[in-house]
Amino acid sequence: MAGKAKKSNVIFRPHFKTHQSADVGSWFREAGADSITVSSISMAEYFAGEGWQDILVAFPVNILEIDKINSLSENINLSLLAESGKTIRYLDESLLHTCNIYVKIDTGYHRTGIAADDLAGLDKLIRQIRDSDKLRFTGFLTHSGHTYHAKSKNEIISIYNEALDKMQKLKARYVGEFPDLILSIGDTPACSLTEDFSGIDEIRPGNFVFYDVMQAELGSCNYEDIAAVLACPVVAKHQDRNEIVIYGGGIHLSKDSIQINNKTIFGLPVYMEERGWSLPIKDSYLKSLSQEHGIIKASDDLFNHIKIGDIIGILPVHSCLAVSCMREYYTLDGKYIRIF
Amino acid sequence: MAGKAKKSNVIFRPHFKTHQSADVGSWFREAGADSITVSSISMAEYFAGEGWQDILVAFPVNILEIDKINSLSENINLSLLAESGKTIRYLDESLLHTCNIYVKIDTGYHRTGIAADDLAGLDKLIRQIRDSDKLRFTGFLTHSGHTYHAKSKNEIISIYNEALDKMQKLKARYVGEFPDLILSIGDTPACSLTEDFSGIDEIRPGNFVFYDVMQAELGSCNYEDIAAVLACPVVAKHQDRNEIVIYGGGIHLSKDSIQINNKTIFGLPVYMEERGWSLPIKDSYLKSLSQEHGIIKASDDLFNHIKIGDIIGILPVHSCLAVSCMREYYTLDGKYIRIF
Repeated sequence: MAGKAKKSNVIFRPHFKTHQSADVGSWFREAGADSITVSSISMAEYFAGEGWQDILVAFPVNILEIDKINSLSENINLSLLAESGKTIRYLDESLLHTCNIYVKIDTGYHRTGIAADDLAGLDKLIRQIRDSDKLRFTGFLTHSGHTYHAKSKNEIISIYNEALDKMQKLKARYVGEFPDLILSIGDTPACSLTEDFSGIDEIRPGNFVFYDVMQAELGSCNYEDIAAVLACPVVAKHQDRNEIVIYGGGIHLSKDSIQINNKTIFGLPVYMEERGWSLPIKDSYLKSLSQEHGIIKASDDLFNHIKIGDIIGILPVHSCLAVSCMREYYTLDGKYIRIF
Repeated sequence: MAGKAKKSNVIFRPHFKTHQSADVGSWFREAGADSITVSSISMAEYFAGEGWQDILVAFPVNILEIDKINSLSENINLSLLAESGKTIRYLDESLLHTCNIYVKIDTGYHRTGIAADDLAGLDKLIRQIRDSDKLRFTGFLTHSGHTYHAKSKNEIISIYNEALDKMQKLKARYVGEFPDLILSIGDTPACSLTEDFSGIDEIRPGNFVFYDVMQAELGSCNYEDIAAVLACPVVAKHQDRNEIVIYGGGIHLSKDSIQINNKTIFGLPVYMEERGWSLPIKDSYLKSLSQEHGIIKASDDLFNHIKIGDIIGILPVHSCLAVSCMREYYTLDGKYIRIF
């Protein structure tokens, strides 16, 4: 991803909310990253403490955290995300140090942001930012989260192109007054499936560091690209219904699910191997989760192969949430890595 | 709940997996509890460290944790849950100190346990336990988790009665040989709706310490009984669709949802008040969660009443998982309480 960004001459600002770890962050630094994205002020504090100097908090500013924002922006180059006049007014009155402001644009996901065609609203907000000596208008940012509902690679690419088109129109409108303004686009599906980032200035993919079942099903990656697995002890087996009970539940994987072949699936089982794990085991899936239990519906092969006391791997549906639950990695080299 | 148990003369062994906290545990001690249930060995270690001497780990034994089991059972009265001959054999060979064994019975939930009518399987397993000098057969335990899919209070009660009936038949069969054997039944819905626990020996409700939206919808409690709320800063508002964006997502609430009036709901908003919070706000609900964002579909009243920077409360769909995500409480008296 760093290579692709470099080739397209765009800023690589990877999202660290997936791995949340200083050690994994250092792998990004080795790949040349020096600017990052996080999803909370506390995550920004953690990575600032690890020496990251250029951090974007890609979440609408929580004005209740103004004291932490002021401490952070004293020491690092802090970028914030805003979409409301009230927040901008508050920041203008309360910031002690200059912050960069990205304006959040809604290009179709309809979660947050100002609609790309709300030019009156944008004009007003950008004027407010421009008139503040604490705020530096950096550019426009969007997150096309609706790519996660796409049914094909082509649909992902067309969502990306549509967002790009809307963003470029905004750039054209404001670049005269703000010649340095940038466009920040790019979630994992779009960044994985696009080779050419021309027309944008910055990408912020995060999930690709591990990928997961959802990304594999979307087509962002292949199953062999998934780089994180939950290692689960087998605690019971039920022959009459080909079910394997694992120690691995909602507090370990969270509860994101995905529909595959009309089944609701909470993860896919793999065999653990000396240096990694197998591809998903055919005709087998994690069918339900309670607080600590998971129930695998197993093929005959899997059922007969696995014994109580074995460890089975579960590829997570959503690696960001599984990481956030587990808070620790164990690498194939036998090293423990904590998250923040 | 402690009072009801006492009145019915049953052992009160509350499940601590909901609150997971030494401080909250001490409130149970004040109410007279001296035996508890937990859902993992690590939770047992934590509460043993807090002075609890009689702990049941109500999760099928993970034989990979034998060293921790041996350390624990040296110091406390440890009870384990088993359902397989292989696990019993392993424990017999590997335990250093005597443990109590509850046999897990499947009375209809079909997650774990030996089917209540598999008498040959039960005979064999109980013989194995009896023949081990490391294992003490305590009795039968069931968890009627299917009460969570019940559509009415009557259905919950009839599931409970059906389970009770199956368990009593087992007691009748084995009590001659094991005169002290006990029946351990009782999740929160059944224990909340039943006044009379006659015919059983031990109850293990847990969720009732806080309750949640799921329990209120089941009829186990009223909305005013819910004792835990997620306090969420408001970070954006979208007038065109009456949506409020909060800082409160899947990493805070987990992702359990419930259907209410054909809508998928991830939590219910309440107004925070001086000493607590309001009842659920009419015609408003948490409609979606991302990693850190929540989106409230708001009534006009709520939308107009709430400003960016306010704190809004979210009643969790499943308090156990929300607690496990947040790992800390803030009491109405202004005290922080950590979980284990």
